Amino acid sequence: MGRLTGGDPSLLRRINSAVVLQALRAADSPTLTDLVQVTGLSRPTVEGVVEGLIETGLVVEAAAGEGATRRQGRPARRFRFRTEAGHLLGIEIGPHRVAALLSDLGGRVLDTAQRPVEERAPADERLERVRAVVADLLRRTGVARDSLRAVGVAGPGIVEADGTVRLSTALPGWTGFPLGERLRRSFRCPVLVENDANAAAVAEHWQGVATGSDDIVFVLAGLSPGAGSLIGGRLHRGFGGAAGEIGALHLLGREATPEKLLSTTGEPLHPLDEAQVAAVFAAARDGDAQAREAVDRFIRRLVHDVAALVLALDPELVVIGGWAAGLAGVLEPLRRELARYCLRPPQVALSQLGEAAVATGALRLALDHVEGELFAVESTVTGRRRTAAR
Amino acid sequence: MGRLTGGDPSLLRRINSAVVLQALRAADSPTLTDLVQVTGLSRPTVEGVVEGLIETGLVVEAAAGEGATRRQGRPARRFRFRTEAGHLLGIEIGPHRVAALLSDLGGRVLDTAQRPVEERAPADERLERVRAVVADLLRRTGVARDSLRAVGVAGPGIVEADGTVRLSTALPGWTGFPLGERLRRSFRCPVLVENDANAAAVAEHWQGVATGSDDIVFVLAGLSPGAGSLIGGRLHRGFGGAAGEIGALHLLGREATPEKLLSTTGEPLHPLDEAQVAAVFAAARDGDAQAREAVDRFIRRLVHDVAALVLALDPELVVIGGWAAGLAGVLEPLRRELARYCLRPPQVALSQLGEAAVATGALRLALDHVEGELFAVESTVTGRRRTAAR
Repeated sequence: MGRLTGGDPSLLRRINSAVVLQALRAADSPTLTDLVQVTGLSRPTVEGVVEGLIETGLVVEAAAGEGATRRQGRPARRFRFRTEAGHLLGIEIGPHRVAALLSDLGGRVLDTAQRPVEERAPADERLERVRAVVADLLRRTGVARDSLRAVGVAGPGIVEADGTVRLSTALPGWTGFPLGERLRRSFRCPVLVENDANAAAVAEHWQGVATGSDDIVFVLAGLSPGAGSLIGGRLHRGFGGAAGEIGALHLLGREATPEKLLSTTGEPLHPLDEAQVAAVFAAARDGDAQAREAVDRFIRRLVHDVAALVLALDPELVVIGGWAAGLAGVLEPLRRELARYCLRPPQVALSQLGEAAVATGALRLALDHVEGELFAVESTVTGRRRTAAR
Repeated sequence: MGRLTGGDPSLLRRINSAVVLQALRAADSPTLTDLVQVTGLSRPTVEGVVEGLIETGLVVEAAAGEGATRRQGRPARRFRFRTEAGHLLGIEIGPHRVAALLSDLGGRVLDTAQRPVEERAPADERLERVRAVVADLLRRTGVARDSLRAVGVAGPGIVEADGTVRLSTALPGWTGFPLGERLRRSFRCPVLVENDANAAAVAEHWQGVATGSDDIVFVLAGLSPGAGSLIGGRLHRGFGGAAGEIGALHLLGREATPEKLLSTTGEPLHPLDEAQVAAVFAAARDGDAQAREAVDRFIRRLVHDVAALVLALDPELVVIGGWAAGLAGVLEPLRRELARYCLRPPQVALSQLGEAAVATGALRLALDHVEGELFAVESTVTGRRRTAAR
């Protein structure tokens, strides 16, 4: 608490630097005068900070013509944040594919790549596929590996803080796999590992259907369903990273699993066979009575899962993603049933990002990490708040 | 953000004052030298702040003999926070009783009072009972109404931010009742209204079985069950204040309500008849087969509720309270079943505060409010953080 008022000059410099960098990023090539106005800092302070940022390569004087230059008189010097000063990766590791996005420091996606992977591939092979996709992406874009500032990775399972997969029923050999540690051998920058549904929740909040809400639940509907939630705009991982692992709700109700519910033959579907699932949905749309019954059973099951999450968390918005997102007509029964069971029913929407949600969320987590380091005001003050609260 | 670095002297004064007050409260009658050491502030600053606090009546020079005075040399002046400078109320409004706790500014309970109320009493009568209990308590303790700094109130239902009860199925006339507004007529200080299970969660974290954990779910087990949760030590109310309103889970599973499950006659129990419930539990303990079956059904139902909360939130600890807390043997089946269904099973414990949990939590919320005003460092910095995040 002493630091709060004791005047730590290096802390102050860091805060000032972060404040100026934020202002630079938010504005369109601002002048020093703009920055003084926005930040409330003195002109000499802003000048000093900007010079320091230019030295680190994060800021550059904007070329003539950049920004608003139509005012009268001698044009003032303008500056801009160099989003090209570093790059980020967002990687999805799924049962059937590995996909990656490459972006600049502003989060603008430069290119994407993906490769299929065998559902039964061992963990090492899956990891090799990740390395290949990343190598592809870097080669195609001409981005140097050293330019990467952070890598976000998301896949099924409960993930420990260090990136070890504590438990994943979906991928063979994944439980106990030190995914973070293994990936860190391939990158010199920080590697952040996250659960896939959690990443998708972050993605929809960033660029999808949930940009207007800070309290959301994202349901990755599927044969092995999961959920991720944001509370007050922050990811809620739970005490042990297992929040939203709702697969067991099926067992609890002594009800059947989605694999059984969606079966039209009596034989359960394979837990990861999305093609088979799509066929059942298609048959239902074509009027096949058995398939329609199966889909109805599945929707009732989905309603149950979503309602349990909604009653526990009371989100503003529920986003339905995963392959079930393609299912016409899932929203209406969901809304109707939630209105029936929830004292305060949430809005319900389909994922906007679809298949890109998980990798996009992983990218956003990498971006969050870099922003936390570059624009350190928030993390600095949050750190203080924690100190003050003890 | 300008304020962060622009040097707002009144803000700085407020922060300094809060820092000194926190240090005063935490230590045992510290000297000015102690305060300088703990806060990192300069001696003149501390002196100025302490003088100001003495003027407001919040701080007083400690009498000789208070604090550690056994050191050599002339004793330095010592100071202490005057916990007697103000008082707080924590009030429970339940179906069958109204109870209240009166404490000093340190949260030390001075006295308690309670009165029964008819289950079917209209809202105004219930409110009148609250006023009577409070008047009792103030008269008996000789505390002036003007000395109250904040009042916390907790009862069943979803509560709006302004203290209006949005929905309560347990109390007649309670839905839509402007409880906060009506109570504010009786008090000049702030009145905070909260859901009962939420308050109980806060209480167990403060003084009960959950003091060691910041991520808990409190389940108010009963015929009309509810839950409250803390995430990172903070109450999670949900977007619309309905988080943990799990009553509808019973309907969702197409399963029976607790009233039906606990019936030994086929006729459902009355939703608020705790005596009847106690009789069923007692009969089960005495070996009555029908009663034992009823209790088993009820426990299975409780396990289902708790599991849904655990899967959604992933708490470190689940606390079981409400009348079911008296039920011998509820913990073991709960632990066993949660271990079976949850990927990361939480600890499970019985409420330590029992019947006092709801009023104690209401008191803690009143104390939080006052501390937020007096020891404003945290709220100030949190406010900044929000600014910085935009």
